[in-house]
Order: sequence, then structure tokens, then C-alpha cells
Amino acid sequence: MTRRLVVIGADAAGMSAASQALRVAAKRGQELEVIALESTDHVSYSQCGIPYWVAGDVESADALVARTADQHRANGIDLRLGSTVTELDLDARAVVVRTDAGSERVGFDELMIGTGAEPIVPDWARGVPAVMQLKTLDDGTAWRRLLAATDGKAPERVLVVGGGFIGVEAAESFAKRGVRTLLVTRSDEPMAHSLDPAMGALVRRGLEDLGVEVVTGVEVSGLEQRDGGISAACVSGVEHQADAVALAIGVRPRVALARAAGLPLGEHDGLVPDDTQRVADGVWAAGDCCEVWDRVLEQHWYTPLGTHANKAGKVAGTNIGGGSARFAGSVGTAITRAGAAEVARTGVLASWARERGWDVDEVSVESTTAAGYMPEADPITVRVVGERGTGRLLGGQIVGGRGAGKRIDVLAMALWSGLTAADVAEADLAYCPPFSPTWDPVAIACKKLAATL
Amino acid sequence: MTRRLVVIGADAAGMSAASQALRVAAKRGQELEVIALESTDHVSYSQCGIPYWVAGDVESADALVARTADQHRANGIDLRLGSTVTELDLDARAVVVRTDAGSERVGFDELMIGTGAEPIVPDWARGVPAVMQLKTLDDGTAWRRLLAATDGKAPERVLVVGGGFIGVEAAESFAKRGVRTLLVTRSDEPMAHSLDPAMGALVRRGLEDLGVEVVTGVEVSGLEQRDGGISAACVSGVEHQADAVALAIGVRPRVALARAAGLPLGEHDGLVPDDTQRVADGVWAAGDCCEVWDRVLEQHWYTPLGTHANKAGKVAGTNIGGGSARFAGSVGTAITRAGAAEVARTGVLASWARERGWDVDEVSVESTTAAGYMPEADPITVRVVGERGTGRLLGGQIVGGRGAGKRIDVLAMALWSGLTAADVAEADLAYCPPFSPTWDPVAIACKKLAATL
Repeated sequence: MTRRLVVIGADAAGMSAASQALRVAAKRGQELEVIALESTDHVSYSQCGIPYWVAGDVESADALVARTADQHRANGIDLRLGSTVTELDLDARAVVVRTDAGSERVGFDELMIGTGAEPIVPDWARGVPAVMQLKTLDDGTAWRRLLAATDGKAPERVLVVGGGFIGVEAAESFAKRGVRTLLVTRSDEPMAHSLDPAMGALVRRGLEDLGVEVVTGVEVSGLEQRDGGISAACVSGVEHQADAVALAIGVRPRVALARAAGLPLGEHDGLVPDDTQRVADGVWAAGDCCEVWDRVLEQHWYTPLGTHANKAGKVAGTNIGGGSARFAGSVGTAITRAGAAEVARTGVLASWARERGWDVDEVSVESTTAAGYMPEADPITVRVVGERGTGRLLGGQIVGGRGAGKRIDVLAMALWSGLTAADVAEADLAYCPPFSPTWDPVAIACKKLAATL
Repeated sequence: MTRRLVVIGADAAGMSAASQALRVAAKRGQELEVIALESTDHVSYSQCGIPYWVAGDVESADALVARTADQHRANGIDLRLGSTVTELDLDARAVVVRTDAGSERVGFDELMIGTGAEPIVPDWARGVPAVMQLKTLDDGTAWRRLLAATDGKAPERVLVVGGGFIGVEAAESFAKRGVRTLLVTRSDEPMAHSLDPAMGALVRRGLEDLGVEVVTGVEVSGLEQRDGGISAACVSGVEHQADAVALAIGVRPRVALARAAGLPLGEHDGLVPDDTQRVADGVWAAGDCCEVWDRVLEQHWYTPLGTHANKAGKVAGTNIGGGSARFAGSVGTAITRAGAAEVARTGVLASWARERGWDVDEVSVESTTAAGYMPEADPITVRVVGERGTGRLLGGQIVGGRGAGKRIDVLAMALWSGLTAADVAEADLAYCPPFSPTWDPVAIACKKLAATL
């Protein structure tokens, strides 16, 4: 008997699940029909690459596409673009799909929800043409077209609203295109949801070195359309002028369908799959529409990242295909770039830990990415937090020059294994003058932290 | 009662121990007199930095000195340069020290042996002035002087004998100075003691891209002095011409004193301290004169590296000072550079494991250091080995472009924690297009390995 899997959303999570389900089912001699429904005309592309495409680091949108629609179809997936699911009927095991040709019901045995995230759009930004996102391939196309406009419409000044990962990446991309860029964030420093203020200040400096003007502690309260531009009014009473606005105040799980179908949502309004990625009988979910199990916080958390979408989608696919897999969770690792500054984080901030009543201490050290006497030596700041008593490492943040950022993986591996700060201080990390001081900055930080815990 | 610590050898291990012993003793209110005896005129400098100084990456030898003799003295250490210990009398608790002024006996309560390593010099190289090392500050001075000679004596062609870490670094440094460089190694590929041949071949390519001529499978059997140069005769019958020879066929523990004093040596002819760095009652040792506990091999191994010298020296110092510390051992992590190629390794090679009768499998993957569509994307090859049945990761090797090498630390952390290859494949490593493909190459390799174990 052929089972039918319907996948809603044909990006990282959905297509990882679809491909893996087919592969595993075939291996087990099971017949599986896979229908993937995608509301846009795009499939399996790197959202994380959009800012770099806008910046001009990547020349063609094609490069961002991991697998084309034709490739998916050649693999046996019935991929339907321009197909929006408007209703999910769990009792009848069917979805209603709207296309240009009309609506139809499609039944399923298994359902995979990979609807992703949607940008948060405040009221003041709704319906203003000069306000754009920087999330989808279409967003990227619109920005590239705008920035390259030769009819005098290319913006001289772009306002980026929001200082998180996307805001920082957007600001970098505009600045690299030579556009005057202003980033406003209501927090004291950029990346306040990810970094301590002292580390956020280093990100701000990275942006400023690129020529970005960073205004902190300011909330945009409204926009006013003016001759040849717009003006952003802020709650502080200040006004900022721009020709275009990049809205980057965050995303949230796209779960309207799931909510309407009665599927339970978590504290962060995302679907909350178990570790097999199951959300209900024969219903699976993965990616940015889901919360992710955080191994350090020991709770579900909203961590919309392509890495988790890929991994969890694959886990879902394995289980749908009749195999057995579990998603091991996240420790909250993330990395980006702000000009010459590499910025990375993992685990919890001391402030989060203290809110939870955990007894923690933190230290920050400044060192160099290579031996101090080498031309490769760039400054690096490492900040780590650990639990008093147990000595357990709880999180880390890194900002620095070339070679700084990916050092976060050492701390991520330590969190993954539940190591103490002292364990990391003793660990056998690679040393050679072009790559590290004798004691790696990450080890130095953990050594100093271990002494206080 | 003031105890007296005598330290033999004032480099990384000895001076780490000396400084730490003083610090810990002071904290505990104990009186400790520290006499450090150093046969050369140099103290606490970075041996690892010598090739980069010769290459011209580092301008001044002063930059390589971590702490000067005066700084050590200001910290309360009675540091005596030009003081060679000629005898060690453990029964009488005294050493005999020879200086320009004569010989004297110096008694001790505690003895710290930090005599380091000595280059292996084959018979054919003894007493040939054109044959030089690249290990000490004096070696570096000699090379810098020779390379900068304006009297026509600057070598046009240098022969590097030995394809290990030092040989590769030496070849890089000469090539960067514009000298025609020939590296000969008796192995099939460079770095045969550290890398599988397939990875060694990538190192060779890195050197060749720098202009180094690499001749493999050749053992030098003799040198002949000729007009304005020398000729190296090889056992294969070939002859190679050069104006100077850099000998880099390896080092061994400098343990003549310790051996004469009756201290037991290990399989690799190094001192074998316990995990407190104690080798006998009141006698301690650390650094390149010692073997190091390898956590993967579960045996002592000769791993002469500055990192271990620093850490183990500090452990010795803590214990000498009356505190308590243990050295956690090594997993065999090392890194270097061969031109544009970053080269790193950790754990065991499959061949070592098979010699031990371990049931292992290995995989090699090629990927990119950044998302494939980014300008930062350089090739990277990751090779990993794991144990069948348990799935445990046993080792890894990486060769690749910018950002490749320090990824070894992820595998080193996994070995440190005894993780399986599957654990690493699932781990939460940092992703963003300028820094990594969605799946980090290290995770891809471990995923592929896990599937075979």
C-alpha cells in the first residue's frame, strides 16, 4: 500500500524531510508518495545567504539555490510551486490547496509542516512601499533591483530597523554597497537578544568601522512619507530620514494553519515537536515554525536557524520513512559578521541564567587570534559564563578579528558534552603562532572563569 | 623553614613551574626559594615562533620572548643564565652547575626538570658547518644572519632534510624569503608521522604552490662539501645541491642528566611523570623532556609541544608550591601552515589504530570553509577515523584554506569528551555563509563516518 506524505513548505526543513523520507522508505522497500506544496515559486534556497547576495558578495541568486525544483522532481518528489495551503483538516487527513487554477483537497497519510517563520511587521510599517524585508529570495531581488536602479530611485540612505542578526547583516550589506546606512535598535547595543551589552558594543564598533551609523535605545513609532523619501519618527521624539527602510525586528513561527487546526503551540508560539519531530499522530514538523529543545536551558526555545531546520527535517524524514531518528537539540550556537568583526555566541547569557535563579559567574578576556607577535594577530574578546558550585560552562560569546568567530565551536562542543570551564581550560586545542597564542583565548577565558566558580 | 626549588632549564616548562610554584607557595604562606639554571643566555621564548621570525613575519627576536630574565628576577626567581647542570645527585639532593666562573654544587629540596628536547643529528651531519637547526633563538639568529648576508654568502638554495612539522615550517620560511628551497623526506609524503599519505599529499601541494621542491621517499646518506656549496648524497643514489642545509629530522627528549641519575625513562626515552608531574620523591618534570599521557591511545606518547610544556609545567609548579593539580593529558592535537594550506590533526591515524588491533573505519570528505557561493569559500578536506561497534571518534585530520585548520579543535573537544562520530555530526556548530556551509565540513565527515561504524 502506498502511503502519501504531504509536505507544507518546500524550504530547508520541508525538503530535507521529503528527500530523507523517500530515501529511507525506498531502503525499507516501502512505497511512499511525496507531494510538496510551496506557496512561492522558490524552493530549497539559502535564506542566510540573502544579505550577502544583496551586498554583492554573491553574484547570482541561482548560487543560493541548494537544489532546484527540477532536481527535487527528478528525485521523485511531486513538488508543486505556487500552491498555498489554506486549510488543514487533521480529522479528515487532508489539506486544502489554492493555486491559480483554483482550490483542491489533497489527502495525506503523513503530514510534514515546514511553514517556516514570518517577519514581525509593526502597524506603522504595514502597507508602506518603502519598507522592505530581507528574508526571502523575492526580498533580495527587490533590494538588488532598488540598489541598482539607474532612474535616480536608488536609495542614498537606508534605514535598518532592528539590531539582531538580520539587522546587522542587512546593515553590513547596504554599507558594502556604498549606501549611507543607519541602524536603529531599541536596545542599548546591537544583538541584545544574543549578546551581553559589552559584546554588543564591539558589534556596534564593527558596524561603525564599516560606515554604518548606529543609533541605540530608539524605538521607531511611525513613518512619514515625504518628497523623495521617508522619515522615521521615534518614540524618543527624534526623526531619521531615509529613502528606504529594511525591517529586521525579528521573525516568529508561521503557524496560522497549525493553530487553526488545533495543534498545540509552545511558550514562544511555535510548534513543539517531540524529539522524533512528531507533533500529532502522523503529523510532523521542523524548522522555523517550531521551537527547538535547548540542552543548556533544558526547555524549548525559539531558535530559527537553517542548521536546525536541516537536521530536524532530516530526523522527521527518517521517521516518516519508517526509520528511527531523534533530534539532539541545540545549545544556541550562532555566528555572523559585522564588517571586520566576527561575532559568535553559544549557550546562555549570565542575565538569562540569573533570571532563572541560577548561581553564575562570568568573565571576559581580551587576547589575540594568533600569537601576539604574528602579523595574523587580531584582537579577540571572549566572554564565558558558568555555574558556581558545579563549575559547569553555561555559555560563551566571542567578538574579534579573523579566526575569532568559529572558535565558538569549542565552547559549543563543551556545552554539548556538559563540560566544566576547567575541562575546557585543560583541553588540547591546536596551537601554532599563525593560528593561536600558546593558550587559546577560549581556554584562557575558561581558565579564568574556572577560578571564580 | 625555606624550601629550595632548583629548576633545570628556563623555557616553557621550567619557568611555568617556577612562577607557579612561587605564586602558590606565597598564597599558602610557605617560603620557597627558586633557583633556575639555564645553560644558554635565553629564557622563556617561543620556539614555535622561530620559523616565522626567519621568514620575516616577525621582525625582532624580542617579540618572541614571553618574559625576560629581568621580569623573572623581579618576580623573585634567582635565574642564572649560562649555567649548565653537569650532574644530578638525587641521593645528596644536589646538582653540579658549571659556569664561566667554574663549577659549584647547589642543593635542593625540590627539583624541576625542564631540559626540553634536542634535535636528532645523524652522523653525516655532525660537524658540517653548512648544516643548521631551526630550533633555538641562536639557530634563528644564525639563519637570519645567513639569509641577509651581503658578502655573497647568502644561500641561493637551501636543502631542508625532514618533512615533519619543523621541516614544513622551515621550508615555508625559506621559500617566503625568496630562497630556492628543496625539502627531502624519506616518507612517501610530508608529515608521515602525523597525517595519512593522502593528507600529506595536500601538504606537499601547499609547499609546491609556495615554490618549494618536495622530494619524497629519499633518505640523505651523506654530505659532500664542494666549491661554494654542498651536495647531499641520498641512499637512492641521487644527489641534491644546496648552499645550506636545515636539519629537521626530529627531536628527542634531552634526558642525559636524568638517565645518568637513574631516573626511569619510558618507551620513547622520555621521562614519564605521573599526572602530578612527579617523577621521583621531590623530583618533577614537564615539557619536551617528558612523554605525555595520550587520552586516545591510553598510553604515554612523545608529543613535544609548547602547549603541553606550559600546562604540565604549571601543574608541577602548583604541586611544588603545596597546592594540588593534575595534568589532564593530550589528545595529540597539532596545527601548522604550509603556504596557503592550513594543516591540522588530532587523535590517532587509522594505521596506528590497526597496528593496535583496533577495528576502525575512516572517511574523507571534501567541502568548503564557507558556503560554496561565498567568496570566502576555500577547499577543505576532513578525514576522520572511528571505532566500529562503539562508534567512538578516534582521530581527525584537516587540510584546507583559510579557516580550515582551527576546525580541528571541534574534533579535539570530541576526543576530549570521548564522543561518538554521531555526536559530532549532531552537534550545534556555528553556521553563517561567510564561515561555513550549512553543515560544517567536520560534521559532514563525522556524519559519513558514523554511517560506516
